Amino acid sequence: MSARDVPMNAPARVPTPQPGDPRLARLSLNQRTTANWSLREAVEGCAAAGLGTIGVWREPVAEAGLAVAARMVRDAGLRVSSLCRGGFFTSGDPIGDNVTALDEAAALGCDALVLVPGGLPSGDRDLAGARQRVADAVAALVPHARDRGVRLGIEPMHPIFAADRGVISTLAQALDIAEQHPPDVVGVVVDTFHVWWEPGVLEQIARAGQRIVSYQICDWITPLPADTLLSRGMVGDGHIDFAALTRAVSAAGYRGDVEVEIFNADVWAAPGSDVVATMTRRYVEFVEPHL
Amino acid sequence: MSARDVPMNAPARVPTPQPGDPRLARLSLNQRTTANWSLREAVEGCAAAGLGTIGVWREPVAEAGLAVAARMVRDAGLRVSSLCRGGFFTSGDPIGDNVTALDEAAALGCDALVLVPGGLPSGDRDLAGARQRVADAVAALVPHARDRGVRLGIEPMHPIFAADRGVISTLAQALDIAEQHPPDVVGVVVDTFHVWWEPGVLEQIARAGQRIVSYQICDWITPLPADTLLSRGMVGDGHIDFAALTRAVSAAGYRGDVEVEIFNADVWAAPGSDVVATMTRRYVEFVEPHL
Repeated sequence: MSARDVPMNAPARVPTPQPGDPRLARLSLNQRTTANWSLREAVEGCAAAGLGTIGVWREPVAEAGLAVAARMVRDAGLRVSSLCRGGFFTSGDPIGDNVTALDEAAALGCDALVLVPGGLPSGDRDLAGARQRVADAVAALVPHARDRGVRLGIEPMHPIFAADRGVISTLAQALDIAEQHPPDVVGVVVDTFHVWWEPGVLEQIARAGQRIVSYQICDWITPLPADTLLSRGMVGDGHIDFAALTRAVSAAGYRGDVEVEIFNADVWAAPGSDVVATMTRRYVEFVEPHL
Repeated sequence: MSARDVPMNAPARVPTPQPGDPRLARLSLNQRTTANWSLREAVEGCAAAGLGTIGVWREPVAEAGLAVAARMVRDAGLRVSSLCRGGFFTSGDPIGDNVTALDEAAALGCDALVLVPGGLPSGDRDLAGARQRVADAVAALVPHARDRGVRLGIEPMHPIFAADRGVISTLAQALDIAEQHPPDVVGVVVDTFHVWWEPGVLEQIARAGQRIVSYQICDWITPLPADTLLSRGMVGDGHIDFAALTRAVSAAGYRGDVEVEIFNADVWAAPGSDVVATMTRRYVEFVEPHL
C-alpha cells in the first residue's frame, strides 16, 4: 500500500475504498475541499472516486451557469447534497439574495441551503442585536423555502468567527431559532469543526433530531493555521472525536449525506485526486463505522 | 493633546488620567501586557502611572525571587491583584505544583490564583474526560486554597483554545464546577476575550455573583493575528461591548480590581509606558464609567 495521505504526507493506514464500495454511499465532497478544481473537475473527481453526491457553492455554479451546472451534476449520475451558501443576515437587506439562493438550490435538485449567519457589521458591538436579526431573517425566509421545497440549515459557527462571520455560536442557539419553525423547513447544519467543543453537544445533537439538515466533517488541528478561515484539518489529523459525534448524529435519526468540507491551504495545494482519496480513507476509518 | 494610542498609533481620544485620579482606583496592569518589562520595571511603571495594583506571573516572580518580589511590590505601595497561573489540570499530576502556586500567592499577599484549565493531552480526543479531570483537580485543591486564604479562579477560555490550552469553554461550565464548592474558596475569572461571544453571558455573570474572582479585560480584534496566543487587542480596538459586560460584572456585586491583560506582539513592541498610558485612557473611556 503505497498511497499517502495529504496534506501530512503520511502513509495511508487503510486501503482506498473503490467505486461501488457500499461504505461510500453517504459520503459527499464539498467542492471547497478541492478548491483548485473547477466544478466540472470536482464532479468528475467525485464520479471517479465512486461518490454519489457533491456539495456545491454558488459562485462556481454561477460561473458554469446554473442550468449547465445542474445538467453537469445530473449527467455524471450525481446528486447535490447541499448548496453553500445563503445567510449573511446581519447587515444590509439579505432576503432577496437568499430567495435567489433558494431558487438555485431548487434548480440543482438540492433540498438543503446552508446558512452562514453573518458577523457584526463594522463598528457594531451589539452581538445580541445581530443574533436577533438572524432569527428575524430566517423567519422571513420560511415561506420562500417552503414554496421551493428547500430546507434552511442554520449553521452555528465556532466562536472564533463570532465577530466577522457567524454570530450564532452554538448548536443550542441555532436550535433555539430553528425550533420556532416546522422541522421540514428550518433545521441546523452540524459541522464538526464548529461544534466539537460545545458543552453538551451530544445532547444538542439529540435535541436536533430530524432538524439536522446537513452533517459536515473536518478536523480541528493545532497549532491553528495563521489564517483562521483556512484553519480546518483533514479528518483524523486533529482533536475531534468523530466517533462520538457521528454516533450522536446517527442516533438522532440523520440518514443524509456526510460532507467533507475542508478549507486549508495545504489541502488545496495537494492534487485534487489525492485529497479525495485521503478523505475517503479517513471517512471509512473515522466516520462511517459510527453511522 | 499629542499622545497617541498604541499599537494602532491613533491620536488619543481622551486625556491620560494622572496619578491620584480616582477613576484609576480599580485598574490593574497584568504584567504580561508589558511583556518586555521586568517585574521591577512593571512595578515601577504601575506606580508611575498611579495604579495601585499589579497582576503578576509566576515565572518572573520566581526569577526575581519570591520574597524579593513580594517586597518589591509592597515597597512600591502596590498590591498584587492576581497570580497567573495555576491549573493545567488535564494531564500529569497537577496538584503539587498548584499547591506551590497557592503558597506563592499567599506570600505575595494575593488572594486570587488564576487557573488555566489545560488542554487535551497529545493524541487524546476525550474532551468530556478532560473536563472532568479539571473538576476533580479543583476539588482536590479546595482544602489547600482554604488553608492559605487564596481563592481559586477557574478561567473559562475561548473555544479557540479548547484543544490545546483550556477545555473549560464557557462561564456556564466554569460555574458548574465552582458551584460545587464554597464561594469564598472557588470562583471564576471573567475575561472579556474569552467570554464575550457566549450565549447568555450576561445571565451567567449575574449567576456568578460573588464568585467573580477576577475581571480581566482586553478586546477581540479582526482579522485575528496569526498566532492565536497573541491575538488579544487593546481595549476599544475590537468588537467587545465593554459597557454591557462591565455593567453586568458590577451588578453581580464585583468590587475588585480590573486587570488589563493583553497578549499581542504589536502591543509588546511598543514602549511599556505608552502601553500603560493607552490602557489607562481606554479604561476610563470604555470600562470605568460602567463599574
